[in-house]
Amino acid sequence: MRESSSTILRDMMAVDTKLSPLSKKVHLSMDEPSLADNLGDVDRLRRFLERELGSRVSIPLSQMQLIPYRIREGNWKVTVTVGMASSGWDVIDVEAGHTGDSLYGLAVDVGTTTVVVYLVDLATGRTVDTAAGYNGQVSYGEDILTRIYLAGEEGGVLKLRDAVLDTLNRLIDELCKRNGCAARKIAAAVFAANTTMIHLLLGLTPENICMAPYTPVVNSPGLLTAGETGLNINPAAPVCCLPGIGSYVGGDAIGGVLVSGMHQREEISLLVDIGTNGEMIMGNKDWLVACAGAAGPALEGGVAHCGMRAEPGAVDRVNISRNGSVSYNVIGGQRARGICGSGLVDCLAEMFLAGIVDRAGKFRRGDSFTVVPGAESATGHDIVVTQKDINNLMRTKGAVSSALELLLESVGCSLGDIDNFYAAGAFGHYLNLESAITIGLYPDLPRERMVRLGNSAGEGARLALISGDKLGELELIKERITYFELNANEVFMNKFVSSKFLPHTNLDYFPSVKAKMVQRGLISK
Amino acid sequence: MRESSSTILRDMMAVDTKLSPLSKKVHLSMDEPSLADNLGDVDRLRRFLERELGSRVSIPLSQMQLIPYRIREGNWKVTVTVGMASSGWDVIDVEAGHTGDSLYGLAVDVGTTTVVVYLVDLATGRTVDTAAGYNGQVSYGEDILTRIYLAGEEGGVLKLRDAVLDTLNRLIDELCKRNGCAARKIAAAVFAANTTMIHLLLGLTPENICMAPYTPVVNSPGLLTAGETGLNINPAAPVCCLPGIGSYVGGDAIGGVLVSGMHQREEISLLVDIGTNGEMIMGNKDWLVACAGAAGPALEGGVAHCGMRAEPGAVDRVNISRNGSVSYNVIGGQRARGICGSGLVDCLAEMFLAGIVDRAGKFRRGDSFTVVPGAESATGHDIVVTQKDINNLMRTKGAVSSALELLLESVGCSLGDIDNFYAAGAFGHYLNLESAITIGLYPDLPRERMVRLGNSAGEGARLALISGDKLGELELIKERITYFELNANEVFMNKFVSSKFLPHTNLDYFPSVKAKMVQRGLISK
Repeated sequence: MRESSSTILRDMMAVDTKLSPLSKKVHLSMDEPSLADNLGDVDRLRRFLERELGSRVSIPLSQMQLIPYRIREGNWKVTVTVGMASSGWDVIDVEAGHTGDSLYGLAVDVGTTTVVVYLVDLATGRTVDTAAGYNGQVSYGEDILTRIYLAGEEGGVLKLRDAVLDTLNRLIDELCKRNGCAARKIAAAVFAANTTMIHLLLGLTPENICMAPYTPVVNSPGLLTAGETGLNINPAAPVCCLPGIGSYVGGDAIGGVLVSGMHQREEISLLVDIGTNGEMIMGNKDWLVACAGAAGPALEGGVAHCGMRAEPGAVDRVNISRNGSVSYNVIGGQRARGICGSGLVDCLAEMFLAGIVDRAGKFRRGDSFTVVPGAESATGHDIVVTQKDINNLMRTKGAVSSALELLLESVGCSLGDIDNFYAAGAFGHYLNLESAITIGLYPDLPRERMVRLGNSAGEGARLALISGDKLGELELIKERITYFELNANEVFMNKFVSSKFLPHTNLDYFPSVKAKMVQRGLISK
Repeated sequence: MRESSSTILRDMMAVDTKLSPLSKKVHLSMDEPSLADNLGDVDRLRRFLERELGSRVSIPLSQMQLIPYRIREGNWKVTVTVGMASSGWDVIDVEAGHTGDSLYGLAVDVGTTTVVVYLVDLATGRTVDTAAGYNGQVSYGEDILTRIYLAGEEGGVLKLRDAVLDTLNRLIDELCKRNGCAARKIAAAVFAANTTMIHLLLGLTPENICMAPYTPVVNSPGLLTAGETGLNINPAAPVCCLPGIGSYVGGDAIGGVLVSGMHQREEISLLVDIGTNGEMIMGNKDWLVACAGAAGPALEGGVAHCGMRAEPGAVDRVNISRNGSVSYNVIGGQRARGICGSGLVDCLAEMFLAGIVDRAGKFRRGDSFTVVPGAESATGHDIVVTQKDINNLMRTKGAVSSALELLLESVGCSLGDIDNFYAAGAFGHYLNLESAITIGLYPDLPRERMVRLGNSAGEGARLALISGDKLGELELIKERITYFELNANEVFMNKFVSSKFLPHTNLDYFPSVKAKMVQRGLISK
């Protein structure tokens, strides 16, 4: 697999993208008023600002109230921070004198489990710091369905909104302190998340998302303000969410398309983003199709028996040698406390190739497998993978691979037509590619066509934050995508059932896995 | 004088003006979502709404949060209230089902002394009720200068803003109760006021208004929201202020121009609005000039020794017969409690013609004149006009008539060129025209050319509220007016001094008054 870490991507994008951030600073040197020209302070500022920006400017009353003081303090020189509005610009801050260019924005990836906030310098487009933490909603339920049910109760939506806002505002505070930046100086934010997470973040009920005909409250919320959302930054700062295309393909996936550039090329690409849903988007510059299979939270930390988030103490790599001895890697090099999603996928693949589980994903003997014996673990207890963990993982991979088959059929393509495969999302970044293919989660394609996009949701948010063009492109991508609703699709259900084998009922779809199975003596040639 | 009461004007305007109110209701019947069309609720509403309105619609988050409930409650029929935005429309309310057309707006005349709130039915353009009260700021100072000084103190602006907001919200509450209308159903408001009053209403410092070069904070605040201003109506309702052209010619006067239609006709018109300032605007469809003389609060209730507002108990008409006997009229027909502005002007004119005061405005004997003896009054005390009251009134009329002379000179016109004279503002409505001419406050023109505009500020606000075209016209009028700053004008000061005679140093300017003086034997032919 070509390594395409987020660092490399980020630099590549910073070069590629013309800076036109969601908010920016404008330095004005105005003529002093005189008897011959005693225009009002605000009218004067507007005149100079509109001349400078070449477009309409709107000034909220709270700024008007400060302007007479600020312009006199700065002796008719001021620095105005403006934020993009649906037409023209909104004034979001006015400072006395010329205060330099430094201005910050946030690119935010709101995951069901993890929230990542990138502090971006809007003058350079670069990420200057990152803070991550558990989504505070986790305390109300690890998995997304539990939260959707809670949201249906009286006051539930607000409870969940406050939980994720608390997390966000705590991370913002952390970033501000670490970088000596006042929260008021953060002048824009862009969110990338799945549709449900965007709903809960904005205080919108997600209750219709999981009921036919699966209608979200909104796919394109458009430009909001930080004040409306409760985000602790400049309250007038523009805030936007990467647009989603349906209840199950959210802005996070659209962000991946933007980052990959697949929507601009001749070749056919397939982007797969596995989280709570297995979302996939396929196409090229002429057409784009998408669908999603409810992957379930099998890979999210804390769902498996010994599951945990991919953080220090988590087993993230497992190897079972021919003689049955187990080796593993622990993040941070310390004693193991649990196993994370990529460790689980690795473990299932290795157990399968070692003949410990059969093609149906059932243990041949017993009902669990010890990855780390209690004597080696941080807790003193065995770290195990259970039959239930495997069953969950089988459902996930079944949903993802069925969705992919259906998508290919719907456009009359086969796997061989796919020129580029993009593994998007946090899992795409951490998963062992070979293991993901062995269990049938990813298709078995020539490895040189497979690219890891890193945190493409966060990167998509950063691009939208620093480039009005990219923000517009996202809306165009969204409009171009044809969405297949699988939840009510009978063909999908049949495929789903038949794909619950390792790696698949039809081994010819997975030639490299078949070769390994022959090599290991699991099947004859 | 042709009677042109506000009632007659209002009806005339309602016929003349095509209804395109600042806010309106739209009834939508949407297709139910299906698997083939599972667009988000908000996106669906936006699609139908934009199709209906033919322009861009923006939806605040607070409305998005309600939309999924409202559209299902109404079985995909909703009534959407939209308010005009700087581009397109903002959604300000969404109701389940089709709720009829009734929707209200406010036209508000914020005077230094009196605040008048008109409740307007936006579906018909008609005023359905009116509430008036003292401006709560009066408790901080009767006259405007006292308030400007207070505003310069720490927290002063907010104190004054809260005072007038309290008054407004009390009057709104009164109107809502009387008309069975929820405050949330009031979906727009337009303010007409002088520049200082607009500043204090919006929480803007007026401190630079009375210092050279006399720059207000803002002349055209543009479209605000009720929430920003603190007005207790639908918080998302659009709120706008009639634009002013300078520190001393405010939106109230521009409203008068709009109501008179003088900016659209060939003939030359002169509009005079006497309040705290004597504001005047002159011109026709090709040119408009304006200036203002600081009239002072002589005519405002409560400034004169026995002064009061024009309400029941106020002497509003005074007549002194040839034999010296005094007759008077009391508003409401009850016992007199004081004398209002129009009573004062009447009294000075009558005292002058009766020879009680001389041409310099000095009592020939004593230092006061009893209008109502204590035995007849409600208080048991004499109601008198003092030398100080007269001095204040002389300053007012001096400022007004000097400004007019200067304005005429600046455009090379004489009184004879004026085809229409418009008496605007509340004083213009109540003043006895002959008395105003006798003391030199109004020019001595053929009476058939003189028209009373009524409360043209409130009427201008109503027109802007119910007609986007009129709102646009106001901005154009503002742009077209050439403003003469008199505060620093030496010629004005000379004229000011020389005009402090009754009716004027040069009696030839006042032929009808001269005739009366001859008739009364004050001067020989």
